[in-house]
Amino acid sequence: MRTRAAVALEPGKPLEVMEVNLEGPKAGEVMIEIKATGICHTDDFTRSGADPEGIFPAILGHEGAGVVVEVGPGVTSVKPGDHVIPLYTPECRQCPSCLSRKTNLCTAIRATQGQGLMPDGTTRFSMLDGTPIYHYMGCSTFSNYTVLPEIAVAKVREDAPFDKICYIGCGVTTGIGAVINTAKVEIGAKAVVFGLGGIGLNVLQGLRMAGADMIIGVDLNDDKKPMAEHFGMTHFINPKNCENVVQEIVNLTKTPFDQIGGADYSFDCTGNVKVMRDALECTHRGWGQSVIIGVAAAGAEISTRPFQLVTGRVWKGTAFGGARGRTDVPQIVDWYMDGKIEIDPMITHTLTLDEINKGFDLMHSGESIRSVVLY
Amino acid sequence: MRTRAAVALEPGKPLEVMEVNLEGPKAGEVMIEIKATGICHTDDFTRSGADPEGIFPAILGHEGAGVVVEVGPGVTSVKPGDHVIPLYTPECRQCPSCLSRKTNLCTAIRATQGQGLMPDGTTRFSMLDGTPIYHYMGCSTFSNYTVLPEIAVAKVREDAPFDKICYIGCGVTTGIGAVINTAKVEIGAKAVVFGLGGIGLNVLQGLRMAGADMIIGVDLNDDKKPMAEHFGMTHFINPKNCENVVQEIVNLTKTPFDQIGGADYSFDCTGNVKVMRDALECTHRGWGQSVIIGVAAAGAEISTRPFQLVTGRVWKGTAFGGARGRTDVPQIVDWYMDGKIEIDPMITHTLTLDEINKGFDLMHSGESIRSVVLY
Ligand SMILES: [Zn+2]
Ligand SMILES: [Zn+2]
Ligand SMILES: [Zn+2]
Ligand SMILES: [Zn+2]
Repeated sequence: MRTRAAVALEPGKPLEVMEVNLEGPKAGEVMIEIKATGICHTDDFTRSGADPEGIFPAILGHEGAGVVVEVGPGVTSVKPGDHVIPLYTPECRQCPSCLSRKTNLCTAIRATQGQGLMPDGTTRFSMLDGTPIYHYMGCSTFSNYTVLPEIAVAKVREDAPFDKICYIGCGVTTGIGAVINTAKVEIGAKAVVFGLGGIGLNVLQGLRMAGADMIIGVDLNDDKKPMAEHFGMTHFINPKNCENVVQEIVNLTKTPFDQIGGADYSFDCTGNVKVMRDALECTHRGWGQSVIIGVAAAGAEISTRPFQLVTGRVWKGTAFGGARGRTDVPQIVDWYMDGKIEIDPMITHTLTLDEINKGFDLMHSGESIRSVVLY
Repeated sequence: MRTRAAVALEPGKPLEVMEVNLEGPKAGEVMIEIKATGICHTDDFTRSGADPEGIFPAILGHEGAGVVVEVGPGVTSVKPGDHVIPLYTPECRQCPSCLSRKTNLCTAIRATQGQGLMPDGTTRFSMLDGTPIYHYMGCSTFSNYTVLPEIAVAKVREDAPFDKICYIGCGVTTGIGAVINTAKVEIGAKAVVFGLGGIGLNVLQGLRMAGADMIIGVDLNDDKKPMAEHFGMTHFINPKNCENVVQEIVNLTKTPFDQIGGADYSFDCTGNVKVMRDALECTHRGWGQSVIIGVAAAGAEISTRPFQLVTGRVWKGTAFGGARGRTDVPQIVDWYMDGKIEIDPMITHTLTLDEINKGFDLMHSGESIRSVVLY
């Protein structure tokens, strides 16, 4: 069949909206009609050419929501008509990672997904002249119709609006999951969030859910403050206005009883390796945990003195918020529908597929938190 | 009173054994007759002048065992005649750290201890001419008699031999505690230990106690192999004999089911920041944990790509094995007396106080695992 898609023909160029060929689902695969998709920094990282593992031509997009329209042989967990969220981190429930009970990083289709291919080593997309078009993060939600492995779709309730829950396919789950799955923040904790973009806002609301007492936001842009407060931030620090952000956080978290100070948990949502170091070092001696969420530039390295760890700080990271996609994503959709978490204020712009490049412009100018394409 | 002690008069010089003055215990303090003390790399780090925080003149030594001979006003938890192990990490049970339930790094007397002073800001030791001599790590076990705060002594059973249990005051607890308190290794795990000196051997026996299936030792010296096997090592890697030690460990830990490979836990006992990086990167994607135990050179920094953490590895450290001294040390003494852990083969040399500098020579030549001074 044919479908409309925004294609990344080569690095650094705008996407081109065009008709492409899409083969039907093979064994273990499903075809989804994408109803809405977010535009994420990760898409832009690859589109721009900065991603050393970027493959072209490709159909980008990984924050989608839609409806199953066809299933291949052997598919049992979803059927046509089911509402689903595509998962760039699949959950096969059978690989060593899924069975470890220690990680969400399913490895069942890792090798082929990284090469822009379906698990059988081929692509379902092609140009009208037959040239293959690569998949992206196993999702390719910048196409009106796409094909995914069955293990990479989360079935969700049918009353949830596509244009909001598509964001659960990436930023919402990443931010909230970093708090509840990776850091396991407890009631009464003091936490710091570096970077108050979309991921940062979701970390904030995760911290609020977790019952944190002090939720400090750090950003170079004062304009981020009102929205961050809406999502739970209790204290704001602009590093431009203080000499040493680490010392500022240590002082802010001191109490009459605890004169050492430091955050119980910190989260880096900037991707800046220097900020990652601050995020570690501002945590409390003895037990502070720092979680890296942001994606760093290719080749960038984090450093610190080992003393920071020997005196009890823990450095960790998270991918997709430590969430198991098929198991945890439907629950996060429920939380949204029940009003336990908010998404609507973060979807600042809605576009058509033809306007998709405007979404990247809005991201670069800092005008949007999240732009969503509605098909 | 007067006591014999080995005094570090200035950095880089041998210790000098001499008579020194010792004041009796003040409020909350106890005087201990040290019966035996180990000689540790940390003492040598300070003695040599490499420790930027070293203070002179000082009485070094922090791995002791002895008997309480006098208690100051207000001391209730020990009495003259009690057998005790001095603790360089105290346990006050009242400070924010002790009450956090998350760390063993009691901060009650941290500031003064770091300055070589008792909690009231003075020293109990002085030269015969009255010049103050600084305390070291709050212990100063290279003196036949020493004074410590009550919160810095662990009361232990009286049938335990001083010349063996003194090592529980440092290396034994550090190595075993890193496994059981910091990493919380579970039965069936695969673990790697970098550096098979005294700490490394204790990590090995901690892993054996914890029920680890695969216990890989890494050392540049093949001669370490027999003793390491005695303490539980199941596989040995000499980095000189392989191209890439990380890849070697990943391959060794692969199974027919798990073709990703990597250690569940790794422990650095070398203090070398490059080895610390290898120790992190050889752990399993998704859940590998690496624990830094070794003390790095002043100013040295650890680095890695944040991707290592984002894909699920955790970087942490440990001090005194995460053990609460007064609570956990007596239990480790019981384990030794019950034959659950071994210490005897690690005490390779016994010296008199007059021979103490020979202990440092034996350490440098690699002949000793641990030399113990018997008073
Ligand atoms: Zn995303
Ligand atoms: Zn899996
Ligand atoms: Zn020691
Ligand atoms: Zn304390």
